[in-house]
Amino acid sequence: MKTLIVYAHPEPTSLNGSLKDLAVSTLATDGHEVRVSDLYAMNWKAVVDAADYGPDASRPLKVALDSGRAFDAGTLTPDVLAEQEKLRWADTIIFQFPLWWYTMPAILKGWVDRVFTYHFAYGVGEHSDTRYGERFGEGTLAGRRALLSVTAGGPQSHYAARGINGPIDDLLFPIQHGILYYPGIEVLPPFVLYGTDRMTGEDYPDVARAWEQRLLTLESTEPIAFRPQNFGDYDLGSLHLKEGLEPAGRTGFGLHVRGQ
Amino acid sequence: MKTLIVYAHPEPTSLNGSLKDLAVSTLATDGHEVRVSDLYAMNWKAVVDAADYGPDASRPLKVALDSGRAFDAGTLTPDVLAEQEKLRWADTIIFQFPLWWYTMPAILKGWVDRVFTYHFAYGVGEHSDTRYGERFGEGTLAGRRALLSVTAGGPQSHYAARGINGPIDDLLFPIQHGILYYPGIEVLPPFVLYGTDRMTGEDYPDVARAWEQRLLTLESTEPIAFRPQNFGDYDLGSLHLKEGLEPAGRTGFGLHVRGQ
Repeated sequence: MKTLIVYAHPEPTSLNGSLKDLAVSTLATDGHEVRVSDLYAMNWKAVVDAADYGPDASRPLKVALDSGRAFDAGTLTPDVLAEQEKLRWADTIIFQFPLWWYTMPAILKGWVDRVFTYHFAYGVGEHSDTRYGERFGEGTLAGRRALLSVTAGGPQSHYAARGINGPIDDLLFPIQHGILYYPGIEVLPPFVLYGTDRMTGEDYPDVARAWEQRLLTLESTEPIAFRPQNFGDYDLGSLHLKEGLEPAGRTGFGLHVRGQ
Repeated sequence: MKTLIVYAHPEPTSLNGSLKDLAVSTLATDGHEVRVSDLYAMNWKAVVDAADYGPDASRPLKVALDSGRAFDAGTLTPDVLAEQEKLRWADTIIFQFPLWWYTMPAILKGWVDRVFTYHFAYGVGEHSDTRYGERFGEGTLAGRRALLSVTAGGPQSHYAARGINGPIDDLLFPIQHGILYYPGIEVLPPFVLYGTDRMTGEDYPDVARAWEQRLLTLESTEPIAFRPQNFGDYDLGSLHLKEGLEPAGRTGFGLHVRGQ
């Protein structure tokens, strides 16, 4: 595998830092190529602005159109171009981050906002009677697989089907489906550690063993069965899921996962 | 009303900028006090790091604990202290932002990550047999109301109950429930504009009229009926919603909204 690890935590000795280091060593020892985007160490610029598009920034600024024009012209900033190149190089992408306020830290959202430009991650492919562009299962990053490795401070029960935070699969859906599956990446079931606020060094060996196990079985892990957009499950006018495809009683985000 | 508008768009003449300006003028003309946090104009620092906690940053950095210690000591950075003061001053908070990758832009997430510190927005109140801290309906910001005003590029049907993006209420749940209701803010139904990628100047008068209408009726608008944590709906051991409280067939995030 060629694995890119996108890592977002300010403290190298944190649990997130340790899990990132363990992923690097475990995958390298197993014979895989690994590259790391350590967003804090890179002093990653988190905020989209006109400076991102240089001479291709219009006045007034049009974020989508300008990012597409700069992408087409090859004039995006070097930091963004480097991340797009890493994504093209990789066949596997691991995101290592703490859940802050039920989603990714701002620095990682800023990586998405700046790297996933128009014509690279969206606005790809033709629209016709049988296709609504290339997205949700198709796109620039098709053929790649991603995995979220996430730490959550609260206990697992709070993230269960009836838990007060909402189900973890639903909390991660906007990332897994909306950000990753959109440009064509298949998404493996996430590796989530709960209760990390109260975790101690004594808990780490078990955590490390579970993470190594996931890392060493990535190639045989089945992705989440998100429904591709252009292959019959959706009405292409409304992009509504056609009636009757889901298991009885399923609603919400779960509609967009096949079967079960 | 005392209204704080938190606004996140890089282009002042954008639709988001126009909606922010219209909110300021409409509310002021109607006799209300208005303050604005224009995150791009303020050059808001989006990224949590040790510099946020000055002398209270521990080594290794502990984001939650250090932010709580700096909050208690009054040594948070001036930009964060100013935002916390605005939140205490306001009785109404409007968030004006474009939906980028199905959630808020990084600069706004960074406002949440840095301003919503431990002991201010979380880690508030005692735990006992009858209370799990003060959160989800109670907390520092109780008594305030918030409204998301959001622009979405895609058409409304894509955000419907069966739409490919997932239902808009579910996409906004991690913000409305997880970020705003958590420290005690009541949340009004969002003002969402769809199809903004294809909107032209000709569409703006209708949009402005609808937004003014919402602004002028904020005080009589009923908040979303999220379930408070400590008043009987949840088992306080697991924080699972007790069985049988929800309308038949409801699952997912919708469990945490009463009735209907």
